[in-house]
Amino acid sequence: MKGRGDRLAAALVERELDLMLVTELVNVRYLTGFTGTNGACVCGPETRLFLTDFRYAERAAAEVEGWEAITVADEWLGGIASHLCGRFGFEDDHVSVRLLERLRGKLTEGVEPVAAGGAVEKLRRVKDEAELEAVAAASELADEVWRWSLERGLGGRSEREVARAAEARIRELGADPSFPAIVAAGPDGALPHAEPGARAIGSGELVVFDMGAKLDGYCSDGTRTFAVGEPGERAREVYETVRAAQAAALDAIAAGVGGEALDGVAREPIADAGYGDSFGHGLGHGVGLEVHEAPRLSPRSEDVLEEGEVVTIEPGIYLPGELGVRIEDLVVVTPSGCRNLSGLPKELQLVA
Amino acid sequence: MKGRGDRLAAALVERELDLMLVTELVNVRYLTGFTGTNGACVCGPETRLFLTDFRYAERAAAEVEGWEAITVADEWLGGIASHLCGRFGFEDDHVSVRLLERLRGKLTEGVEPVAAGGAVEKLRRVKDEAELEAVAAASELADEVWRWSLERGLGGRSEREVARAAEARIRELGADPSFPAIVAAGPDGALPHAEPGARAIGSGELVVFDMGAKLDGYCSDGTRTFAVGEPGERAREVYETVRAAQAAALDAIAAGVGGEALDGVAREPIADAGYGDSFGHGLGHGVGLEVHEAPRLSPRSEDVLEEGEVVTIEPGIYLPGELGVRIEDLVVVTPSGCRNLSGLPKELQLVA
Repeated sequence: MKGRGDRLAAALVERELDLMLVTELVNVRYLTGFTGTNGACVCGPETRLFLTDFRYAERAAAEVEGWEAITVADEWLGGIASHLCGRFGFEDDHVSVRLLERLRGKLTEGVEPVAAGGAVEKLRRVKDEAELEAVAAASELADEVWRWSLERGLGGRSEREVARAAEARIRELGADPSFPAIVAAGPDGALPHAEPGARAIGSGELVVFDMGAKLDGYCSDGTRTFAVGEPGERAREVYETVRAAQAAALDAIAAGVGGEALDGVAREPIADAGYGDSFGHGLGHGVGLEVHEAPRLSPRSEDVLEEGEVVTIEPGIYLPGELGVRIEDLVVVTPSGCRNLSGLPKELQLVA
Repeated sequence: MKGRGDRLAAALVERELDLMLVTELVNVRYLTGFTGTNGACVCGPETRLFLTDFRYAERAAAEVEGWEAITVADEWLGGIASHLCGRFGFEDDHVSVRLLERLRGKLTEGVEPVAAGGAVEKLRRVKDEAELEAVAAASELADEVWRWSLERGLGGRSEREVARAAEARIRELGADPSFPAIVAAGPDGALPHAEPGARAIGSGELVVFDMGAKLDGYCSDGTRTFAVGEPGERAREVYETVRAAQAAALDAIAAGVGGEALDGVAREPIADAGYGDSFGHGLGHGVGLEVHEAPRLSPRSEDVLEEGEVVTIEPGIYLPGELGVRIEDLVVVTPSGCRNLSGLPKELQLVA
């Protein structure tokens, strides 16, 4: 966590804030290392306060370093308010309208909350070495679960059975799923957020298998589309189009490239092949403590990639009633390209 | 879901609201049956609108009944705003400061948001028959997992191993844990929110085992404290004190009883035995679609129990560095008492 409070404090000066109140737990964890379910921090040029309640005093002592840990005895909001002064930033994208009203009621005269949501999320974009290792470890674990799943075979099992077994395997290996696994076969593959169903996966079907692991707080995210036996010409054509689109994006990615431009690089070969209307989501997103975080790669993105960011590259084509294909890698942005954390092959795999 | 929109509409009239915008997903599910991750509803005397995006159009068609389902094509907040008029309530306890600001920017002149959080949560307190069956089924499933866990024995295994195995078993039985299971042995039992650790559970230790299942959206919550072999005089005395406190509360509970008064009924025998400072949390809380919901049973509760509410009764004594005991049942409030959904014995069980 070292230096993260300093980076936040430096960002506050730019925004002309005296302090920042951080209440979103994943941001609190990022700054302080605290993993409990009630904590907040107050950060400023000379201030590094971490607040929790009696239930977590012991955990805070074990986990939090570089921040003065305070146990709020009685009234949580009052306890926080007593440490605020001047113009303080708060996370307006997370704090509820009611919570802000109640907090206002506790502030002394002249203390002023200022909307400053996203300040910590911005810091979280570029990962340090320990974070990159954590994401890579989560990604490797997920790769292992894909291989394990294929060994058991997909055909004849239900989507739900395959998904639940993969999640159980992730847990057996000491991690958690970073989101409920998606296993979508045949026409179900055309629904990007299909709930795995009870129907048996049939021969000749494509199977979109989207999964991630969360290990030591850090997430992975990836997708492969497999074929259970020979899927036919049309499926192969769609698959190769997506594969080419993904390869183009992986070729083009580097620090300094814009999220909108990169999305366009993948969208072009898909449009050229006549599937322009069938890629209905963005190209990718950041991954870290959360499975979806900044930056975004999409037609509306204003983000520019930086070295050390971790993003997904996941173009897809979805043909309603027929099939879907998505290929998703997790990559670390480097000055001249990327380091790919996904270890699975990308040529179409015909599996049992 | 039948009638729930009507009850909300009736509540709006009392608050002089024309409409209510419901955005909290668990409340949206309660009203409409929708289980996806993006949906909202707008409810009024003549209005039952459910809004989602294209990803969930199909699911909405399958799940939502009695509400007109609308797919918002482009801009989500603008789509919602176009259906709002007059003084409309919004969930100020869930809606972020930023979201409200952005929504305000989309409203036509004269349309006014009014803080009305808790309106749906209030309706959720009293459960209907189907809900009571769902909670009872979740509770039975959890009971089965406790029995299964005891058959495997607790002594010599780590807290973490016991907790993870119980969670895996809940999933095998087709449910999900309603929260991460707590298994806290010996001195760990004195930390009400201990993370299960790697230390092997020793002979003579008390083990606080707090667990719940979530089945068809409804949660259970319960705790038993077991002894691995003979725990000694002091542990037995503490256990019996908690057991007596719990029995007193179960005797006193009925519709019309206040949450503060009932908490006091359990607190008294604990104080009389000299442990008044060692019961550092409230007596209980409502359980339903969420594992913690209204009403609250605590020294500061202003709630009065009603028939059909489902609450936990969970007194405890926590002696830092030494041991903890908590006994928690899940009960349905009846006119003259309660129906206990927890099927496990409460005399101290000496287990392997």
